Amino acid sequence: MSDEQELGITESKEHSPGDWYAEVVQKAELADYAPMGGFIVTRPRGYALWEAIQDNLDSWFKQTGVDNAYFPMFIPESYLEREKDIVEGFDPEVAWVTQGGHEELEERLAVRPTSESIVAPYMAQWVRSHRDLPLRLNQWNSVVRWEATETKPFFRTKEFLWQEGHTAHESDEEAWAETTLRLDQYQRLYEDVLGMPVLRGRKPDHDKFPGADTTTTVEALMPDGKSVQGGTSHHLGQSFAEAFDITFSDENEDERTAYTTSWGLSWRAIGALVMSHSDDQGLVLPPTVAPKQVVIVPIWQEDTKEDVLQYSSEIAAELEAQGVRVHLDDRDERNPGFKFNEWELKGVPVRFEIGPNEVEDEEVTVVHRPDGEDTVEDRADVTSAVFEHFDDVYEKLYDAAAERLDENVREAESREEILGTIGQHGGYVKAPWCGDEACEGEIKDQIHAEIVLVPLAEDSAARAASEFDDEHLPTPDHEGKDCAVCGEPAEETAFFAKSY
Amino acid sequence: MSDEQELGITESKEHSPGDWYAEVVQKAELADYAPMGGFIVTRPRGYALWEAIQDNLDSWFKQTGVDNAYFPMFIPESYLEREKDIVEGFDPEVAWVTQGGHEELEERLAVRPTSESIVAPYMAQWVRSHRDLPLRLNQWNSVVRWEATETKPFFRTKEFLWQEGHTAHESDEEAWAETTLRLDQYQRLYEDVLGMPVLRGRKPDHDKFPGADTTTTVEALMPDGKSVQGGTSHHLGQSFAEAFDITFSDENEDERTAYTTSWGLSWRAIGALVMSHSDDQGLVLPPTVAPKQVVIVPIWQEDTKEDVLQYSSEIAAELEAQGVRVHLDDRDERNPGFKFNEWELKGVPVRFEIGPNEVEDEEVTVVHRPDGEDTVEDRADVTSAVFEHFDDVYEKLYDAAAERLDENVREAESREEILGTIGQHGGYVKAPWCGDEACEGEIKDQIHAEIVLVPLAEDSAARAASEFDDEHLPTPDHEGKDCAVCGEPAEETAFFAKSY
Repeated sequence: MSDEQELGITESKEHSPGDWYAEVVQKAELADYAPMGGFIVTRPRGYALWEAIQDNLDSWFKQTGVDNAYFPMFIPESYLEREKDIVEGFDPEVAWVTQGGHEELEERLAVRPTSESIVAPYMAQWVRSHRDLPLRLNQWNSVVRWEATETKPFFRTKEFLWQEGHTAHESDEEAWAETTLRLDQYQRLYEDVLGMPVLRGRKPDHDKFPGADTTTTVEALMPDGKSVQGGTSHHLGQSFAEAFDITFSDENEDERTAYTTSWGLSWRAIGALVMSHSDDQGLVLPPTVAPKQVVIVPIWQEDTKEDVLQYSSEIAAELEAQGVRVHLDDRDERNPGFKFNEWELKGVPVRFEIGPNEVEDEEVTVVHRPDGEDTVEDRADVTSAVFEHFDDVYEKLYDAAAERLDENVREAESREEILGTIGQHGGYVKAPWCGDEACEGEIKDQIHAEIVLVPLAEDSAARAASEFDDEHLPTPDHEGKDCAVCGEPAEETAFFAKSY
Repeated sequence: MSDEQELGITESKEHSPGDWYAEVVQKAELADYAPMGGFIVTRPRGYALWEAIQDNLDSWFKQTGVDNAYFPMFIPESYLEREKDIVEGFDPEVAWVTQGGHEELEERLAVRPTSESIVAPYMAQWVRSHRDLPLRLNQWNSVVRWEATETKPFFRTKEFLWQEGHTAHESDEEAWAETTLRLDQYQRLYEDVLGMPVLRGRKPDHDKFPGADTTTTVEALMPDGKSVQGGTSHHLGQSFAEAFDITFSDENEDERTAYTTSWGLSWRAIGALVMSHSDDQGLVLPPTVAPKQVVIVPIWQEDTKEDVLQYSSEIAAELEAQGVRVHLDDRDERNPGFKFNEWELKGVPVRFEIGPNEVEDEEVTVVHRPDGEDTVEDRADVTSAVFEHFDDVYEKLYDAAAERLDENVREAESREEILGTIGQHGGYVKAPWCGDEACEGEIKDQIHAEIVLVPLAEDSAARAASEFDDEHLPTPDHEGKDCAVCGEPAEETAFFAKSY
């Protein structure tokens, strides 16, 4: 009984989302807090989610010309200083190695907060001719940013796992195409793998990555009404190429400066996944990424045990042969009710219940995790039907998230409307904006909401060309309007939201 | 012409193996030197080798009950101090983070030199009952050891990539079985994937991992006669479990202390691979790990170009459909001779040469990288025959390494014989040994050779049971003999060698 209490989630997602999230992460065994504030220990159930994300992105990257590489985790201070925006942007949050063994180092080494400053000088060495371009590198690693905020596993940690892509190109246009290709892949990850629609756009100029021409972003709406920056892709223009001398000889043997990009997606995607779908029973995962997709819970009395277990293990073997990730929970010391609760807590998307009735009737009872919906499948069909159940579960999760997003993009034309709407509903508020950071500042000061994105001009064309109205493709809508905050003529369309 | 000179290897493997190795690594584009001494930048061709090693080991680990996880890259000094052997063993080579942002940290953080001290306290939390055991975790990460030696890419670097496995068990026997299971997997990696036979055994007591009961090792012989420690697996006994309180209640509800192991294999395996097989033309790789297994070099004149390219690209497409990693080098600006040299330098194991004759006769000329052996295959058979060529190439590489190893295990019964044999031939010298570190010290002082392994008792039984005499399974052979160095009765059989 004490075990069961310990197992259950005690916090409420609706009323105390922060505590609820922390409890789900720990009790579903995704992560624990490390002894140092700001760090976490990622347990196998959490790391498996990262591996699923890696497998997908890594294969898409490789299909589109990206090679993995590995650069040192330390960056000499003098290298960090070569691009002024980078050093200004990151210097306050760098962890410094100052001692090696028993000696003081002559030059401090930054534990990488991001690797442009160590990648760019090597790109400069490796690129000589236009034939060496495009050059596309990626690394899966961890970076450190010493921010003094409360630890929130996967959302706010001083060290985090991510991938960082770095590319160099001949032209501005190619670099922009690269930037949006990676943004598309991030969007695909959220929509086709993690069960979440996202909004896409670019950051306001004052919120770009240090040194970037344009920072693009995908944003996911959480059930508590806040936005999560789900991944960013930066068109760096020539700022890094100029700072680090990335030049090439073109077809006419003229020396030209390259254009670069960088793009990163971190384990924050795990945080968004957990927060988006899970509930007061614990973790909810789409079958695409669940480490175990099916748990089989046999239900027996002493006299039926042998038959039930035999039947269950045959089905388990068949599922496994089909490539399904399945676990047969044949523990003697736990009753079925305990097992139901435990696997709901741990986020197994589909449960097979198998008792003497199922054995006799040659059937299986199939239960979906997000809503408890149960159906009975014929034994003969169950190993093929299971894939439809996976699709159903995925669709349920995606549709719920999409409905939430659709309902939570609202419009506002005045400061009061922005403040009132976000204050009351959360979500995104779309408003005409003059482009001045001060106008965002007024909103930020009052309710901690900020401009999370500005629509991309090209998405406007894409949406116009599309036959149906896609709410998830934000488009500009400010022509002839005035800034909702200051009343000056609007130059952009801003999406305001509170943000993680 | 200047390009061709730049491309070629100028150093000799036989006469200046150190310079030759450095040149191959850089010109084959495996790695470059980082700005800080002791660090390297791993380029895509080098990182792909690491990915091949990862793919193999990771699948074997998972098949045998290991889950991946991720622990913080920093370890608080107080944690490092909890196991006294660890702190004594690693303290002199720890890189310390002392500043975060603009603040001094209250407690220094070690950049992990290895993670026992941060893994063990969490194992203590996660393990309560015998049902939680065995607990098997692994992480793929980088670690830092601040050793002041000359940088040698993949062999001696302050930061290196590796995997570190950490497990906890109920009994001493289970922990030992785990230790040797991982050693078996390392041996399999070298023998079945990297084309190198290895010797296996344990380290002398004075050279064990800090805190370990037993450190086991696989050792690979390099062509220059030195041994490379290819991977180590440690039976840690109860030292970490005691220091960090890893206890469990057994079936009788009695509290007992667990037994732990740890095991690691680093990118040194890449170094051993490169050094073992490569030659004065550059990199040589077995097809098992080569990023490109086949390069097709078309040979055309203006009037035959279209036919030759058409024929070549059809074959490339067929190979790709079979899962072969193939590259069609259709560059206009390079002649075939240049291409041959370039792909030999970069270690593509099999080359297809396709000119007008091949097109006309419906054939392909197939050339092996290690020895230039060429055969003509019928067009119709070539996509199936290619796998036999891969096996042939693998066998050639393995056999050469095995022959080298077989010829370089020699016996000695006196100090002079040890010194003379290693001095003259390099390789391994097997000698009866009293077990005293001082006797090793005398050899070390004079020729920098050390005891790289002592045979495992159980391998003796395995060899006795085996029908044939396996030279690669070192066995004890000291009974009734005297220590070759001091003349006292021998307690062990020692394999002396110079070592990387």
